[in-house]
This record gives sequence, C-alpha cells and structure tokens, in this order.
Amino acid sequence: MRMEQLTDQKAIDYLTHLGQFGRLENGGVTRFVYDDAWIAAMNHVLRDARTRGMAASVDSYGNGFMTYQGKTADQVVAAGSHIDTVNQGGLYDGAYGVTAAVLAMSSLVAEFGQPKKTMTAVAFSEEEGSRFPTSFSGSKHYAGVTETAADLQDHQGMTFGQARQSAVSQLAKTWPVIEQPLPIEFLELHIEQGPILEEKGLSVGIVSAICEQKRFTVTVRGQTNHAGTTPQHLRRDALKAAAKLICDLDEAAGKIGEPLVFTVGELTVQPGSSNVIPGLVKFSVDVRHPDKQIVDQFEALLRKKASQTPKVTVQVDRWLDSRPAIMDARLKHQFEQLIAKRGLAYMTLPSGAGHDTQIMNLKVPTAMLFVPSRNGISHSPKEYTAPADLETGITILKAQLYQECY
Amino acid sequence: MRMEQLTDQKAIDYLTHLGQFGRLENGGVTRFVYDDAWIAAMNHVLRDARTRGMAASVDSYGNGFMTYQGKTADQVVAAGSHIDTVNQGGLYDGAYGVTAAVLAMSSLVAEFGQPKKTMTAVAFSEEEGSRFPTSFSGSKHYAGVTETAADLQDHQGMTFGQARQSAVSQLAKTWPVIEQPLPIEFLELHIEQGPILEEKGLSVGIVSAICEQKRFTVTVRGQTNHAGTTPQHLRRDALKAAAKLICDLDEAAGKIGEPLVFTVGELTVQPGSSNVIPGLVKFSVDVRHPDKQIVDQFEALLRKKASQTPKVTVQVDRWLDSRPAIMDARLKHQFEQLIAKRGLAYMTLPSGAGHDTQIMNLKVPTAMLFVPSRNGISHSPKEYTAPADLETGITILKAQLYQECY
Repeated sequence: MRMEQLTDQKAIDYLTHLGQFGRLENGGVTRFVYDDAWIAAMNHVLRDARTRGMAASVDSYGNGFMTYQGKTADQVVAAGSHIDTVNQGGLYDGAYGVTAAVLAMSSLVAEFGQPKKTMTAVAFSEEEGSRFPTSFSGSKHYAGVTETAADLQDHQGMTFGQARQSAVSQLAKTWPVIEQPLPIEFLELHIEQGPILEEKGLSVGIVSAICEQKRFTVTVRGQTNHAGTTPQHLRRDALKAAAKLICDLDEAAGKIGEPLVFTVGELTVQPGSSNVIPGLVKFSVDVRHPDKQIVDQFEALLRKKASQTPKVTVQVDRWLDSRPAIMDARLKHQFEQLIAKRGLAYMTLPSGAGHDTQIMNLKVPTAMLFVPSRNGISHSPKEYTAPADLETGITILKAQLYQECY
Repeated sequence: MRMEQLTDQKAIDYLTHLGQFGRLENGGVTRFVYDDAWIAAMNHVLRDARTRGMAASVDSYGNGFMTYQGKTADQVVAAGSHIDTVNQGGLYDGAYGVTAAVLAMSSLVAEFGQPKKTMTAVAFSEEEGSRFPTSFSGSKHYAGVTETAADLQDHQGMTFGQARQSAVSQLAKTWPVIEQPLPIEFLELHIEQGPILEEKGLSVGIVSAICEQKRFTVTVRGQTNHAGTTPQHLRRDALKAAAKLICDLDEAAGKIGEPLVFTVGELTVQPGSSNVIPGLVKFSVDVRHPDKQIVDQFEALLRKKASQTPKVTVQVDRWLDSRPAIMDARLKHQFEQLIAKRGLAYMTLPSGAGHDTQIMNLKVPTAMLFVPSRNGISHSPKEYTAPADLETGITILKAQLYQECY
C-alpha cells in the first residue's frame, strides 16, 4: 500500500478490519487482553503502522507504540486508546481512539512531512477490566502510576503475570520491546457511550472532566420472620428499608441535578422466599459527578440516611473512589477553536465513564473528544457511530495534532 | 401403660417423644412426608393411640386416624393437625395439634366413658409443602377437595406417587387402610407462629379466620444501560421503579392497617452489575387479611400503581389466591364461653399462616385455638411454647369436645 492510499482510508474501514479479531457471529467483538484475538489484533495494528512509515514497538505490558519521530526528538505528543473489549462488545469502544490517532498522524505526515515534535499513537493493552479483576493496567504502566499484581487470576485460573509474559513474548518475536518515556500531553478520541450528543444532534463533544466516581456496598440487616404471622408494626424488614433508602437517595440525586448520576445496579435479598420477611439485603451504590465536592456531599447524605433508617442497621462500605480528571484548559480551548473554525456545533460535557485519559491525566495534560453513540449504546454488539462522525472526530484530532506538533 | 397413667401425661412429654423421630443435633426436627422418620413417627402415634383404647388406621394418603367410637356411630367429630415438619423445624408446629386431640380425647374417655358421637384424632400426612411442590395434600384428600398429582417430584427426583405408595404399604403391614367419611366438624389447636399472644400476655387465642392470601410476581422491564454515561432523565431504571412501587404499596398497607400484612420476600435484578442500570427486576408480593374484600382492594391498588409507573412496563401475575376460611360462629362462641368460664383472658385473632383447618373449612364447620409462640418464632429449632400454655389449650379443647360429643 502506498502512503497516498493510506491517507484516504476511512475510519470505518480501519475499524472493520480491526474488528475481525475476536469477531462474534452476532457482529460483536470479544477481545480480552492477552488472548489470541488480542495478540493478532496488536500484530495487525503494528504491521499496519509500519506500512505507514511509523516505528512500531511494544512495552513489557504489550502496549503498542507507533511513532513518527520529530525533528526535536525529546518531546512526545501521544494520542490513542485501548484495543481490548468487554465480553460481547462492539467495534468502536477503544478501537476508535487507536484508529483516530493512527489515521490522523499518518495523514499529517503525508500532507506536511516530518513533525517538529514526535507523534506517538498508542494502543493500550487493557482498559476494560473484563478478563482480570483490574482495569487500566496498560495506561497505569505507561504513565508509571501502578504496576498490576502478577497473581491476579482470570476465570480459568490463569494469572495476569503468566498471560502477560506469554502474550508479550509472542509479540517480541516481531517487535522490539521498549519502555516508553512519558509524553508531554495525551489526547484521546472515544465514542460517548451515552445519548447526549445524539439527543442534541451534535457530531462532536469536548470532554470537560472524567467524573469523580465512588462505589459502595450497602448492607441492611433486619430480622427474618414469617410473612403471614408477623404484624407490620413488629417487622424489621430489610428489603422495605432498602427500598425506602433507594427512593430517598434518588430523590436527593434529582434535587442535586444532572450531570450527577446515581445507580443501584446490584441488589440481593436473603433468605429470598416469597413468604419470608427479608432479614438481609445488600445493594451497590454508584455515584458520579465531575465535581468531587458534590460526590462527597452525596456520600455524606448516604451515610446520614443510612444511620437514620429505623428498625434495621445499615452499613455503608466504600470500595471505589476515583478522583475526577480535569481536562487541560489550553488543549480544551484549542479544541473549541478548531471545531468552531470549521463551522461545527459542539458541546462540552463530562464523561461519566472511565477512560485511559484519567490515568494519563495523573501525570500529564490531557484532552478528550467524544463522537456520538447511536441510542447511547455501548458495551454491546449494537455499538454504532455514523461514519461521518468518525471522520469529523479525526479531522479535529488531526488539526489539534498539527497545532501541537508542527 | 394403664389408662389412668395416660390421662396424666403432659403434652410436653408427648411432644418430646414424637420429636425423637427426625430429631437433629441442634434440637430441631426435620420430618418430611413419607420419609423414614415420618413413617416411624406415624407408627409411634398410632401405637400410642392403641394403648389408649383408640381404633387406629390410615387412609391411602397415610393420614392417621385414632378413634373412640360413639354410641351414635354415624356422626364423627374430628380434631388434629399434621405430623410433617419443614426443614429444620421445631417440636410444636402441627405436632401440638395431634398431641392435643389425642390427649384431650383419651382424657375425656378416661373420665366420662364412651362418647355419644364418635371422636377421631387425625394426624395429617402432609401440610408444610416441604418435600414436594404442594401442600395440604393430607387434608385435601381427607376432605375430598383435591387429589395430589402423582408425578410431582422431590429434590431427589422421587415422585409423590412412588413415595406415597412405598410409605403407605409399610404402614399397611400394621394398620388397616380405610378411607374415612367427612366429620361433622373439625377442631385444630396450633401454635400461633407469631408474636401477638405473647405481646398481649395471653395463654390462648381464638382464631377468627385464616387469612385470605394472594401472591404475585411483579415484573418490571426498563432499559439496561451504562451507569456512568446515561443521564438521569433518560434512564428507564427497573430497580428504582420497583423500589418506588414497594414504598408506595407499603405506605398503602400502613393506611389500610393491621391485620393486613404485605411482604416482598424475593427480588432479583438483571443484569446485576454495580455499573449497569438494571433493565429487569422481578419481585414477589404476598398480601394477607382475614377479609377477602381488603385483599381484593390491595390487588386492585397494586395493579393500578403498576400500570401508572412511569418509563417502565410493569406486569403483575397472580399465582396464589386462597379464599379466607371463616371459623364457625357457634364453635367459636362456645370456645369463648368455655375459656371465660375458667377465668382466662383471651383474644380473637386472624391466622396469617395457612393450616389444615382452611381445607376442612371448605367442607365442614371448623374452629381453631392458638397458644403462644415465644418471640413469635416458628419453622425453626427455636420454636417454643411454655408447657403451661400447652396444657391450657388442651383443657379448652377437652371442654369443647365434651360439649360436642357427650
């Protein structure tokens, strides 16, 4: 393939090709970190980059790096996302960010020649947490935030360390294994995975922040008893107490208002018979907002309401607390200008979902663009973004990279 | 054992002896219909009755009948309860009703000789529904209400028909198998299985009715979605809708007031991940009240609220509807007089639990007495009724039987 041909390649063609690795009968994709489909996909992405004149390598986590060396070699501008998927995922989540980085960079080089700063497209090894009980292991290694415990196990009992070593040694047959220095900034394109851009009829959105997110397990202890012979006034019903707590919290969430999201996704009842008053209920609470203070307020409210619930005892355990990732003001403003100059409408919105960018944001300035998700659907074979919107996102990324690297 | 000795026997001794069959390490009892412990228990009860001068037999369901023939042979007054237990049950549930009938009748005959009417103590084969997916199979057969399907299976895959045939053929080695005619009335003593008599400090309660009882499965269908990226206003959250419905129904139940009981004992959430908005929730509704009209009103309210729930669809399926069993006014009034004459305090209360009497009530006049359950506990090895209360109940039953049979 010649360089000119490559620059004409449509994002949807790149994504469709990449989506062959781990493809399912139903049109979806399952590609877990370090599995065979993942290794094939990573090899494919790196080989494709080589045909585009990029220097291709992996690091010891199997993150893929595709680089156009800059004239001023010591500064790297990186862009990308992840190539792993959830179980029964789609073509776009993660893969679009890799596609966009590769296509934007190779198009720039074809058009403008060697950049001043080095441009690196990154295909992170793992973000979804679908195989091992961890997530963002790729970007955490690249950013030097955390190394992932080697003894974490997947459902088959294989450890993260074994899987990583096996996969990286296979990649190492073709690609040099080189640890990469931190870039000076990181850019990511991603599908929104929500319905807001579609609802507003916009092709592109600028991410203001990745939300502060907390998760809790709430345990309600009452008294198991006979559903027929225990009068209402003597009951200590764990489920009715839980239902009231959920209703109260949802009302409070409504008063705080969007973009706060409050979700109870899990709830279990014991003993769980139709004629027995529940003695024990456990449920999850997931709360997110771009402003950490508001999430902290919600947690305080949850704890207060829990302690005030009559007749039962309520225990609140927080098991996840991710600080919000605020996008860089300059990069965000530059995105706004570049979009406006093209006469495109856009909006600024927080990301309720987590992304590799939140890890990179711990170390370097970051910026993110969203393109619309049809019906807000993601993590599903039904994931879809219109090809024109994919192109719009790449056009803006290309312009941003031009500003940053040329 | 001589007759005079038998009439002095305490109820707790009889119960303790019967409780040896199926006894557990923790002091509880597991005695499922037609199992070895059940066969041994039935043989024991019938043998004991024979020593008391009663004619003992079984029918084709293994119901045990222990009879003092009356001078006027064509009228039978029956009293009793069941000898099967739940898994990990106690000494008293069911067994007390058999104990009371046998001890009251043999004490009457010892004191007053042959009755005018025939007195039959009944040990029903099965009431609890703990082995096969059916309950009241013994009383349903005796009353001629329903025959139980032979192909129902227990957890080991044995059918009801096989188990019945095997158990009854073993009993038939010792006892004649005789189908019994309907009695002219049926009396049952039972532990309350609730906390009301204990709360009021009473030794005995007269049952006004066995509650009308309805059970439903409520299915709430919303839309599964990402907990981070779906704004609150676009959610169709099945769990929040279910929680609101449960809260609203509980508030309505409170307004209707006791003795209505409303229980949600089962609730399941799909897909059931902390970061996914629930798309499907199923929960049970159990509602009971001695007045059928009030239960019907509650059902109408449930259906109305279900149909008015916004953003989701709610389906209500009723799978149990037992009509209330109203106790016979004359027998109830006679109980009141007999209790009052002895200077005892009592109350009249509905039964929230089901009993063999509700089946007999479909065909003949019935009456029921409750004795207190400590802490309202039943279906547990912790089941306990004070020996003095056991005796009080039997004294009243004996007086009632005297009025009816002599």
